[in-house]
Amino acid sequence: MNAIQLDKEGHLKHFIGIEGLKRALLIEILDTATSFISVGEKAVKKAPILRGKTIINLFFEPSTRTRTTFELASKRLSADVLNFNINTSSSSKGENLIDMLRNLEAMHCDMFIVRHNAAGAAHFIAQHVAPNISIINAGDGQHEHPTQAMLDMYTIRQHKGDFAPLRVALVGDIQHSRVARSNIYALQTLGVSELRVVGPKTLIPKGIEKFGVKVFNDLKTGLRDVDVIIMLRLQRERMRGALLPSAHEYFHYYGLTQEVLKVAHPEAIVMHPGPINRGVEIESKVADGKRSVILEQVSNGIAIRMAVMAMTLGTQRETY
Amino acid sequence: MNAIQLDKEGHLKHFIGIEGLKRALLIEILDTATSFISVGEKAVKKAPILRGKTIINLFFEPSTRTRTTFELASKRLSADVLNFNINTSSSSKGENLIDMLRNLEAMHCDMFIVRHNAAGAAHFIAQHVAPNISIINAGDGQHEHPTQAMLDMYTIRQHKGDFAPLRVALVGDIQHSRVARSNIYALQTLGVSELRVVGPKTLIPKGIEKFGVKVFNDLKTGLRDVDVIIMLRLQRERMRGALLPSAHEYFHYYGLTQEVLKVAHPEAIVMHPGPINRGVEIESKVADGKRSVILEQVSNGIAIRMAVMAMTLGTQRETY
Amino acid sequence: MNAIQLDKEGHLKHFIGIEGLKRALLIEILDTATSFISVGEKAVKKAPILRGKTIINLFFEPSTRTRTTFELASKRLSADVLNFNINTSSSSKGENLIDMLRNLEAMHCDMFIVRHNAAGAAHFIAQHVAPNISIINAGDGQHEHPTQAMLDMYTIRQHKGDFAPLRVALVGDIQHSRVARSNIYALQTLGVSELRVVGPKTLIPKGIEKFGVKVFNDLKTGLRDVDVIIMLRLQRERMRGALLPSAHEYFHYYGLTQEVLKVAHPEAIVMHPGPINRGVEIESKVADGKRSVILEQVSNGIAIRMAVMAMTLGTQRETY
Repeated sequence: MNAIQLDKEGHLKHFIGIEGLKRALLIEILDTATSFISVGEKAVKKAPILRGKTIINLFFEPSTRTRTTFELASKRLSADVLNFNINTSSSSKGENLIDMLRNLEAMHCDMFIVRHNAAGAAHFIAQHVAPNISIINAGDGQHEHPTQAMLDMYTIRQHKGDFAPLRVALVGDIQHSRVARSNIYALQTLGVSELRVVGPKTLIPKGIEKFGVKVFNDLKTGLRDVDVIIMLRLQRERMRGALLPSAHEYFHYYGLTQEVLKVAHPEAIVMHPGPINRGVEIESKVADGKRSVILEQVSNGIAIRMAVMAMTLGTQRETY
Repeated sequence: MNAIQLDKEGHLKHFIGIEGLKRALLIEILDTATSFISVGEKAVKKAPILRGKTIINLFFEPSTRTRTTFELASKRLSADVLNFNINTSSSSKGENLIDMLRNLEAMHCDMFIVRHNAAGAAHFIAQHVAPNISIINAGDGQHEHPTQAMLDMYTIRQHKGDFAPLRVALVGDIQHSRVARSNIYALQTLGVSELRVVGPKTLIPKGIEKFGVKVFNDLKTGLRDVDVIIMLRLQRERMRGALLPSAHEYFHYYGLTQEVLKVAHPEAIVMHPGPINRGVEIESKVADGKRSVILEQVSNGIAIRMAVMAMTLGTQRETY
Repeated sequence: MNAIQLDKEGHLKHFIGIEGLKRALLIEILDTATSFISVGEKAVKKAPILRGKTIINLFFEPSTRTRTTFELASKRLSADVLNFNINTSSSSKGENLIDMLRNLEAMHCDMFIVRHNAAGAAHFIAQHVAPNISIINAGDGQHEHPTQAMLDMYTIRQHKGDFAPLRVALVGDIQHSRVARSNIYALQTLGVSELRVVGPKTLIPKGIEKFGVKVFNDLKTGLRDVDVIIMLRLQRERMRGALLPSAHEYFHYYGLTQEVLKVAHPEAIVMHPGPINRGVEIESKVADGKRSVILEQVSNGIAIRMAVMAMTLGTQRETY
C-alpha cells in the first residue's frame, strides 16, 4: 500500500489507507489539519490553496454526509468540484471504469474522491490513474476509511494530547467496519498504551488479536478505565441477517448508557463516526452529554479533509 | 415569531414569515433589494458580500424553481452553496432532523434555506439551530412564503409607488396558499387601502375577515376598480379532491381573462407567483399582455433573496 | 440556420449547427480553442473571461459525460453554472418550455447549453429566447452536435495540419448519428479531398451522396488509404430493432480491428466520440493503440467548448 501512497520523497500522493503509513506522516497530517481548523472559524471560510484545481467526487455508493464534507473542504480550498454519483449496476452495463478514468484524466482533473462498496476500489483506481492525479479513499467496502480515522486521531489529540498513555476501546460491529479497521491501524501506529475491541462474538473477526488488540465481549469489562471510547454505527441491515437478534437486545448488551459509562475513566471521551442510531448503539444522554465529542469530530473532519487534499496535491505543497 | 426573527437590536436574523414584522423592516428589505437589482443587470453579476459563507439549500419538498432563485442569489453574492434534497420519507427512517442540524452546524455552515411541506418547519429549525446560523423560509406547508411576498411588494412598489391608496385583490385558492397568507400580512402591514380575497367558498378559509380582508365569491365583483391583482396558482391536486369540479369549470368562473380584466382599474397590474397554468387560472392573453408583471416578479425575486441573505448574515451588515 | 447563429457583424451569437457556417468562422473557432488548450494544462486551470456570467445546463436528455465537459469549461472560464435536468415526460405536464425560458431570462441568465432528444430543439430555443442570451447545442436528436464536430476538426488539424489533402472515413451508424451529420458539414466546409461514409445499408441514409460523400458498405474498401477514421458509437438500442442482427455480427463486418486498420494510410488516426463499446464497433487493441487519438479528443473538447462559450458571449469578445 505504501508504495502507491507515497512519492519518491515520501510525501503523500494518494490517501488510500492508514495501514503501513509511518507515525511521522500521520503526525504531519494532524499538524497540517491544525492550520486549516481556523479557516472554518473565520468570517470568510476560504483559502486559495487549490484554486483552479478540478476535484471529482466519484461516489459509487450513496453518501450525502461524507460527500458533503469533501465538497465543503474542496470549496473552502477554492477548488472546482464536480459530483459524480455512479450507480454501479448501471455503470457495469455501460462505460467501463478504466475508460471513465481515462476520460476524466483527459479533462485534466486533479483529484478523485472515491467511495465504493468494494474493498480495494480506491487502491485499484490509484494503480490505474495517471501520475498527476491524486486519489483519496472516502470509504471502500469493509476495508478502510482513512480520513475518518485521522479526524478521530485529531479529536483524541485535541483532548488528550499524548497518545502514549491512552487506553482506547472500539465498540460494536468490528467485523464489518472500515472505520474500525482504519482506527486500529492509526491507533497502533500512533502508539496507544492499550487498544480494545468490544462487541458480540458474531461481530468480531476471528484472529483479530494478532493486530495487538484485546477482545472483550462484555461491554462493562471492555470499557473499564478507558480514556477514549469509539462507538461504531450499527448497520441496520446486519439485523436483518442472522448476526443480531434485534436493535432492542443489542442496546441492552452493547448500547452505551450513562450507567455503563461510569466504569470508564472519569474524563473519558465518547466518539462516534455518525450518523448515530439513538437508542441502538448509544443512549441520547451520552450522545448529547458532556463526555461526547461527536460534533467536534464533524468539525475536525473538514480540516482533516482539507489537509490531505492540500498535501496530496503536491505542487501546492510549498504554498500552504 | 418576531422574538425569533429579530436580534436584540431589531435587525433581521432569520426570515421565517411576514407575520408580526414591522413596516419599517419590510421597507428596509425593499430598499436593500433596490441596491441588488443592478447586480443582475451588470455584465459581471457578482458581489463579494457573502464570499466564504456556506449556504445550504435544505429542501424537504422538491422545487427546482425556488431553489434555483436562491442558488443564483447565493452565487451572485459569492457564497458557496450546497444543495440538500431530502426525501422526508427516507429521512424519517435515518438520521433525525436535530442531529442533521447539529452536524451542519459543526461543518460551520452559515445559512439554511428551508423548504418543507409542514407548516412551522423553518420556525422549528430556527428555534433549534446554533445562534450564528440564519434560517430563511422558502415555503413551509400552507403557512408562509415570505420571500415571495416581499418580491410581490417590491413589484407593486415599483409600479405603484405608495401602498396607501391601493386596492389589491388576491384571487384563487386562498385556503391552501402560503403565498396568499404571506401577502395578506405584508399588504396589511404596508397599509393598502383595501384588500380583497376572491375565490370559491371551498377555497376561502372561514373567518378570514378578521384579517381585515373583504371576501368575494364573484370574480368580476371582486376585481372591480382594483389596482393590483395577485393570481394564485391552482394546485392541480385540489381538483382531484372534492374541492373543485374541473379545470375547465374553474377557468369559467375564476380564470382571469381580458374580458374580466376590464372591470379593474385601467392601469391595474396582474401578478402571479408562477409557474402559471395557462387556461386554468389565467388566460394567455392576460399572462403575456401589457398589464402582466409576472416576469418582473421573477427578476425582483433574485434581488429580494439577495437582500434578505445579506441582511440576515449580520456580520456582513456594514459591508453592503 | 446562419441567420440565427450570427449577429449583424457576422460574429457567432448561438452555436446550433455546423450547417451553413463559413470556413473562416470554423477556423476562428479552432484558433480560439488553441488559446484555451493551455488553460487545461496550467496548475491553476482558471481564466476570468466569463466571471459573473450565469450558464444553465438545460439537459432534456441525460448525459453525464457531455454535461461534465460543459460544466468544466464553464467553471474554468469562472462562470456560475446551474444544472437543470429536465425529464421531458414530466415537463410536458407542467410548465411549458417557453414559460421556462421567459423565467430563466428574467433571472438574467446569459447562456443555455441545450441537449434534447428532438431535432431542432436548440434552434427552436434560439428563436424564442431573449436577444442577450446565447444558445449552444449540445446535441439535438439526430440533427447536429456541433461542439463534437469542432473538437474532431481540432484533433484532425493538430495531427494532420492542412485539411485539403485528407481522405476521411466516417464509419458506422450514419443514419442515426448527429455526430456524423455535424462532421460531414464541417469536413466539407473545411475542404477535405475525399469524404467517405462506411456502414451497412440499413444504417446509411438514402441519397446521402448529394452531400458529396462516397458510400461504402464494405469496411476494408471504405478504409483503403484514408488518413482519418471517425468511428461512430453504435447505439445498442438499434440492435433491439430490426436494423442490426447482433453486436457480434456487427463487429465481424464493421468493427475496427488491427487487421482492418492495415488498409488505411500507415499514419491514419482513429477517432471516436466516446464512450466506446469495446468489441462492438472497435477492438481494444485499436482503441488503446498508437493510432488512436480518442483521449486527445476529450481534452480538445474542453478547449473547444471554452472557445464557443467565450465567442458567443460577445460582450466578452474583446477580453479573451
